[in-house]
Amino acid sequence: MPHTTRLRDLGIQIGSLPTGPLNAITDVPGVLVGQTTLVTDTPSVARTGVTAIYPRPDLHQDFVFAAVYNFNGIGEMTGLPFIEETGLLTAPILLTNTHQVGLGYDTLVRYGAQKYGGFAYKLPVVAETWDGWLNDMDAFPLREEHFMAALESAGPGPVAEGNSGGGTGMICYEFKAGTGTASRRVDLFGQTYTVGALVQANHGDRAHLRIDGVPVGREINPEMVPLPWPAPPTTSSILIILATDAPLLPGQCRRLAQRGVVGLARTGGFGLDGSGDLFLAFSTGNHYEPGAGGLKSLQIVPHFSMDSLVIAAVEAVEEAILNALVAGETMTGYQGHTAYALPHDRLVAVMQRFVR
Amino acid sequence: MPHTTRLRDLGIQIGSLPTGPLNAITDVPGVLVGQTTLVTDTPSVARTGVTAIYPRPDLHQDFVFAAVYNFNGIGEMTGLPFIEETGLLTAPILLTNTHQVGLGYDTLVRYGAQKYGGFAYKLPVVAETWDGWLNDMDAFPLREEHFMAALESAGPGPVAEGNSGGGTGMICYEFKAGTGTASRRVDLFGQTYTVGALVQANHGDRAHLRIDGVPVGREINPEMVPLPWPAPPTTSSILIILATDAPLLPGQCRRLAQRGVVGLARTGGFGLDGSGDLFLAFSTGNHYEPGAGGLKSLQIVPHFSMDSLVIAAVEAVEEAILNALVAGETMTGYQGHTAYALPHDRLVAVMQRFVR
Amino acid sequence: MPHTTRLRDLGIQIGSLPTGPLNAITDVPGVLVGQTTLVTDTPSVARTGVTAIYPRPDLHQDFVFAAVYNFNGIGEMTGLPFIEETGLLTAPILLTNTHQVGLGYDTLVRYGAQKYGGFAYKLPVVAETWDGWLNDMDAFPLREEHFMAALESAGPGPVAEGNSGGGTGMICYEFKAGTGTASRRVDLFGQTYTVGALVQANHGDRAHLRIDGVPVGREINPEMVPLPWPAPPTTSSILIILATDAPLLPGQCRRLAQRGVVGLARTGGFGLDGSGDLFLAFSTGNHYEPGAGGLKSLQIVPHFSMDSLVIAAVEAVEEAILNALVAGETMTGYQGHTAYALPHDRLVAVMQRFVR
Amino acid sequence: MPHTTRLRDLGIQIGSLPTGPLNAITDVPGVLVGQTTLVTDTPSVARTGVTAIYPRPDLHQDFVFAAVYNFNGIGEMTGLPFIEETGLLTAPILLTNTHQVGLGYDTLVRYGAQKYGGFAYKLPVVAETWDGWLNDMDAFPLREEHFMAALESAGPGPVAEGNSGGGTGMICYEFKAGTGTASRRVDLFGQTYTVGALVQANHGDRAHLRIDGVPVGREINPEMVPLPWPAPPTTSSILIILATDAPLLPGQCRRLAQRGVVGLARTGGFGLDGSGDLFLAFSTGNHYEPGAGGLKSLQIVPHFSMDSLVIAAVEAVEEAILNALVAGETMTGYQGHTAYALPHDRLVAVMQRFVR
Repeated sequence: MPHTTRLRDLGIQIGSLPTGPLNAITDVPGVLVGQTTLVTDTPSVARTGVTAIYPRPDLHQDFVFAAVYNFNGIGEMTGLPFIEETGLLTAPILLTNTHQVGLGYDTLVRYGAQKYGGFAYKLPVVAETWDGWLNDMDAFPLREEHFMAALESAGPGPVAEGNSGGGTGMICYEFKAGTGTASRRVDLFGQTYTVGALVQANHGDRAHLRIDGVPVGREINPEMVPLPWPAPPTTSSILIILATDAPLLPGQCRRLAQRGVVGLARTGGFGLDGSGDLFLAFSTGNHYEPGAGGLKSLQIVPHFSMDSLVIAAVEAVEEAILNALVAGETMTGYQGHTAYALPHDRLVAVMQRFVR
Repeated sequence: MPHTTRLRDLGIQIGSLPTGPLNAITDVPGVLVGQTTLVTDTPSVARTGVTAIYPRPDLHQDFVFAAVYNFNGIGEMTGLPFIEETGLLTAPILLTNTHQVGLGYDTLVRYGAQKYGGFAYKLPVVAETWDGWLNDMDAFPLREEHFMAALESAGPGPVAEGNSGGGTGMICYEFKAGTGTASRRVDLFGQTYTVGALVQANHGDRAHLRIDGVPVGREINPEMVPLPWPAPPTTSSILIILATDAPLLPGQCRRLAQRGVVGLARTGGFGLDGSGDLFLAFSTGNHYEPGAGGLKSLQIVPHFSMDSLVIAAVEAVEEAILNALVAGETMTGYQGHTAYALPHDRLVAVMQRFVR
Repeated sequence: MPHTTRLRDLGIQIGSLPTGPLNAITDVPGVLVGQTTLVTDTPSVARTGVTAIYPRPDLHQDFVFAAVYNFNGIGEMTGLPFIEETGLLTAPILLTNTHQVGLGYDTLVRYGAQKYGGFAYKLPVVAETWDGWLNDMDAFPLREEHFMAALESAGPGPVAEGNSGGGTGMICYEFKAGTGTASRRVDLFGQTYTVGALVQANHGDRAHLRIDGVPVGREINPEMVPLPWPAPPTTSSILIILATDAPLLPGQCRRLAQRGVVGLARTGGFGLDGSGDLFLAFSTGNHYEPGAGGLKSLQIVPHFSMDSLVIAAVEAVEEAILNALVAGETMTGYQGHTAYALPHDRLVAVMQRFVR
Repeated sequence: MPHTTRLRDLGIQIGSLPTGPLNAITDVPGVLVGQTTLVTDTPSVARTGVTAIYPRPDLHQDFVFAAVYNFNGIGEMTGLPFIEETGLLTAPILLTNTHQVGLGYDTLVRYGAQKYGGFAYKLPVVAETWDGWLNDMDAFPLREEHFMAALESAGPGPVAEGNSGGGTGMICYEFKAGTGTASRRVDLFGQTYTVGALVQANHGDRAHLRIDGVPVGREINPEMVPLPWPAPPTTSSILIILATDAPLLPGQCRRLAQRGVVGLARTGGFGLDGSGDLFLAFSTGNHYEPGAGGLKSLQIVPHFSMDSLVIAAVEAVEEAILNALVAGETMTGYQGHTAYALPHDRLVAVMQRFVR
């Protein structure tokens, strides 16, 4: 996996809680991530991909609690009625481009039917952001094999950030961005729990970008780094996936997902109109075997003890977005459009000027 | 407690599941009901009251899971943000007339502050339906003592139906009605659980009334039993409270509450515009001590085993509405208005004519 | 189009409001329906199809207000975040089998991109019920061309019911059923408005079936008409699409969609666990041109005048379900399973015995 | 009205949009605010009050569209089912302390019944935050007359901030705070619209406070300004009321209310557990006369043109919170507790140090 720069590599730190060992969503035990990155110039200009996230390896027979929060719904995340009704996530999550949600959905259902039969993969979660400025989206470049590859390659360990997976062609705060991840650890009742975030960041106006409160976006102006031009249509979005091994009820997962807004807002996000800002949080802290008879036994964190998890979620989301931004590398794509990376030296200089 | 007629006294049975011993919400172990009935002609014409429902006696230190469902929100039920956020009910529920929700709320907070201090009663659930056709509501006849009396008198055992408690002045399908209750028992995983319903029924047009599918409302026409006249404003509503000792998550309580619509629809309800149709379900099957540290252990019914509870809820709601109707006794009140009871002999005759 | 029997052909009438000329969702001016029915025995046993519904012909440039109601979310309807955020429906609705939602989604996005470019078809609504007892669903028999054919063939006029379109392989109350439709007309402020319903009915236990209150399901027992055997897994669902030309806000569309529960309940539906009961209502009474600048002018029905529309929606849904049931014809399919039609003569006899 | 310091008096500016002439919610034409401030030491130590907000003077006969957003529901806002169902606000909003919601509700219903009769004030919105650290809340110091005074005194013009009205005893980021307001103007389609915010700010940990991104809370440490001690229970909350004359649908009001989270997050808010973070937005840009017959004509801002309103709402909320904080004056109250004001000189020094 290519190593790209991370925010902490530049000496910038977000928040106060400790990270997990990888500072990634995969710090939550059992979480697997697989990605397919498709960058081709023929037969069509493809700058796109797929990110697959398994809450745990044997998810098809051991569901996790989950909830979705819709901050600004000009986007798609399938599978919502089932999650709303049951609070359960039963299949891996796929993140990709706007046009190919259908193929992702189709592939995941086929994959589940072939591999496990039965129920688990029938109503899957597939979500999207729009990469049509760099990627010739109308060519529908992803094929079933690309989704399969993301699913099959999913594993623990570091997660490729920036121009990778579903984030390959994404642009955030008018810099090249893409996939980002981060994690935080909290102690609760003598246990250490992890909260991890993975984002597909494709939102925001440059002028709004803030890093640890510093108005970076205003300080790195279009004369220094060109804005995407001709301007893409306002179709910026962000997907946030939050994972934790703290045992949470579905309603408590919703609280975490909703707190994604705070992390997003701290970087300068507003939930502007064209944006599909859809956040999903899951908890692996309980087991839900669909076939088992009898009452199920659960453990949960009391509501009144959730604060450290909330702060962990906010910090992880904020840093994951910034990691997506810092990892993004300048890319030229469809119709010769170029999205420029956030220049690390200038970023560091701005942060110093503002006493960070 | 005055005995009023119940649907089964007339030989009419709803559904197929067995009832609890009282066929009342108080069949759910621990549930307590207290009622104040105020019928005076001076200083104002009062036909109103209060119904108090405790999910369990020591609720202030052992909360229950709960959820609210809004079928048609032209009505009030306070305390909703807290229930939505936590899935917990922490104080007894009060049902009363539309104008005196504020006094009920105020009384409950004072009562909790005096008796227990602390947090539990601060954000209580008080709900209403409109009895202003029989009750001089603008005279605000209930006083703090009436709410206190309902709270203090709460106990197990039979529940007075018809012209009693919060239902004192209520009219349903244009017959005199009021408070009604019923229960069902279901076996699940070798355990017997109870689902109980209590309604404050004040809704509906006569022509829509159905009993076990029979169009009773069309068959007992205004020539036989006068309609309320001059016609009351369209402000008909129904409150449904569902209780169970089956261990349910908040989201599962929402499912039960939502199924109140099915029970209501089977009697001829539509959720017409002026109606405040607000339903709350709670489960006493888990314990949630707010002060206790550490993770909480719960048991839950799997979603995929909830069907018998759903059917029990529907049957209990349907029968509770009909019990409210059968127990209602002709009442004359404010401005000489008279609401007539559903005549039992005619009801039985209609049912027989339609082969029930 | 093959004519199948309708409920009114048997002399059975639901409710009191007049129907539109076709007693179909296409009575709402501008609504188009197209269906593909796939019944093959090789290479796989296919008993499935697609139903496409256009709110109006030029929908891509003149959106309609809409809302979705989730009565029991064990099913899929895509496109929900966009509808929740905007209250707009921008693309035709597709109804099909559970496994092929992804292909329907993919086809609709491609179709929109080719035909209109731009935004409108990017986040479409595709919904499903499960036909895997008669249809070899794991063979994924539908191809892109089948979805295209439904889209391309959409037109005004009568709608094929029973074993047609998305309803081809569906079973309702343990009788063969499928697609059904009905409509009602109401006068409001000197205008006549239409409310139409189309259902894909695949839900329910035989014992629960009621027609105009008569317990038909109990009276046509398994000795008379065999139940599906071996019993299909509990995966019964119902999709309800409601259309009206009365000008409604999104929140008012939600009220209509929610009232689908009442219509469903009147036929014996409970929203049992395995069911995906997802209802969508749209209103064509306003125009929303996405490209137009400036404030938009709307007209709306006041909330307090919605009652006749609510009753119309309930009656149309109830009759659409029963039309699906009456139109269904005995079908043998996958693994030799046979689902039997509701016998019309017995139905009429039962209705007469119960004095209808 | 006593003049207290405002953020702009200190040379600190939030965002980029212009303010209205008063930089207050009352810049929205027709909006009236009235406040009662109760500071007494006998018979009980009272540090509390009431804030009343009228969307327009003749609200009882000309309703406004509105929506509520629940960011963290450990608090109360009554009247939610009616707003959810109708999208209408029909009575002035009251903000007060946690214990006296019931009295506020009761008073508002009586006031409406006496003054206007009829329907409008029956299901009012009364909301709260907890002032029990400075105010002897269990003494229930507010009386009906105090609520009446706030309602009767409501008018246009400047709004008293800090220790005034419902905010009298409130503490924010562990500094004395209370009521705050701000406004923004935006041009849309050749019209100038105003977005105004009023907050009752009682939330947050000192360490989290940010002003224009600067970590002020960390820089003004407990050695400089003592924290509230003994520490109050975690019951911090914030109420946000947003007003605009831009014509918005209820769903669009919800979008504005929801964006309150972004404004809150930018000051350092997280929505921690004990918090009642309830936000309401209304639009006066349409007229809804409840008694009028016929279709209603509306105008609305297209969704795709809402961005400037969203940014205006975020900026107004952010500045209103900071105005509440800057206007708060050191107060000693119940049990000798003292909450200290944010020292203006130190604030300015910190801002300069961080290059603002």
